[in-house]
Amino acid sequence: MQPKVSPGAKKSRQCASEAMSESETPPAPRRTAAEEARALVASTNVAALATHSDDGYPWASLVAFGSLDHGSPVLFVSRLAEHARNLERDPRMSLVVVDPHPRADVLASGRVTLAGTAERPGPELAGVAQEAYVEAVPSAKAYVDFGDFSLWVLRIERVRWVGGYGRMDSVDAEAYAAAELDPVVREAPGAVAHLNADHADALLSMARTLGGYPDATAATCTSIDRYGLDLELDTRRGPATTRIAFAERLSEPGQLRAATVALARRARGE
Amino acid sequence: MQPKVSPGAKKSRQCASEAMSESETPPAPRRTAAEEARALVASTNVAALATHSDDGYPWASLVAFGSLDHGSPVLFVSRLAEHARNLERDPRMSLVVVDPHPRADVLASGRVTLAGTAERPGPELAGVAQEAYVEAVPSAKAYVDFGDFSLWVLRIERVRWVGGYGRMDSVDAEAYAAAELDPVVREAPGAVAHLNADHADALLSMARTLGGYPDATAATCTSIDRYGLDLELDTRRGPATTRIAFAERLSEPGQLRAATVALARRARGE
Repeated sequence: MQPKVSPGAKKSRQCASEAMSESETPPAPRRTAAEEARALVASTNVAALATHSDDGYPWASLVAFGSLDHGSPVLFVSRLAEHARNLERDPRMSLVVVDPHPRADVLASGRVTLAGTAERPGPELAGVAQEAYVEAVPSAKAYVDFGDFSLWVLRIERVRWVGGYGRMDSVDAEAYAAAELDPVVREAPGAVAHLNADHADALLSMARTLGGYPDATAATCTSIDRYGLDLELDTRRGPATTRIAFAERLSEPGQLRAATVALARRARGE
Repeated sequence: MQPKVSPGAKKSRQCASEAMSESETPPAPRRTAAEEARALVASTNVAALATHSDDGYPWASLVAFGSLDHGSPVLFVSRLAEHARNLERDPRMSLVVVDPHPRADVLASGRVTLAGTAERPGPELAGVAQEAYVEAVPSAKAYVDFGDFSLWVLRIERVRWVGGYGRMDSVDAEAYAAAELDPVVREAPGAVAHLNADHADALLSMARTLGGYPDATAATCTSIDRYGLDLELDTRRGPATTRIAFAERLSEPGQLRAATVALARRARGE
């Protein structure tokens, strides 16, 4: 954890260039904890599962998973595996899903724990659940019809999201299921990589003119979502972070590029 | 899971070119399950932790970890976090450690679950444990002296290793602690990437002349260790896998390059 300079902390430091930008920077909206949790679950097909082992340990194992429309995870596990036998004996479980594009310091990365009860889907749900699993885990096509795998859907009872150091919240199952999935979640990692590789100058302009750091000397994008983007900065006073909001919330996949180009133009005063 | 052609299966297929190489290919040695487990734990500083939550769920969460000389994990967790409160109430836990360079199909990747009891180290062990944690998690330097973190060492009681589809074994705590750590574990991922990027021809020669697949048309290295390397092949009969042993077991870091060059020369008949 490096010391951060927050916009609030700047005021006491008497930098001559600040007055002009400070008041122009409204707080940029962020995803709610429920939206963050939904986005994490949609961003990968890998999780760690915790079940109760027969000898009393909480048992951590690796699973692949799919998910239903409201973000309920679907597991399809070999009956020979210890975690499958555990679920058959005691269906209480949780999954932790970690951002598949973690920060260098992994504890600064987003993750979410979904706890609840694993249920065997009835005939109506089983087909949909199996399709959701195979869509997320294409290699499962090779064994989806084998009888020695069991299909489970997690009935979520409790959600705990951690966004990194000092960002965390609990979410109830209803809020999680009701949260709208960020439509740009799948394109976001590629956009972050592209901005950092090819548009460092645009990011720096954003930090200086829209982000409240006119003395920024370098800017790196650490994440992007339907509401805006997060930047890590170097400034003459040390490292800092800021967030830049899009003009409006994105509502469909594919809108990320145009919204980011518009931000870059606005940052340059065009 | 793609169908694999094993050397054994080939014999019934009457390929003209086989007889010459089949008998020249002794089984290549592999790491034991205990050695695989030790190598996985040494290859990363990230794991998923399972603890017993106070409302009865097995609770999966993300942790960073270090490890002691015999592979016992060290945790250093905020007392404010749910998993720390869980350990204080019930120290039974497990960790799952996943290969940090997973295969495209993550279920083909190596992982290991270490189950046991979390113990607060006494004064003698605490300094060593804390050093091991900070060595593995350098960002912890910033908060290592804060009073609101607690240090734990896992007393391992049960180990379950899964190497991918159909490769798995249980290991007892003594065998895990006694296993020698593969000296090339840290340089292996870079070596795999380098071989695939720059030496596809050498890998193909190895597959054809040392791996028992004279009809291989392409070879990719999937892993490398002190005993040898694993290849995935295309052949005229479909995909296959093979393993090539080094002339002798490597005993020190830094020996990987020379041993691989020697294999490539042997494959070309030099």
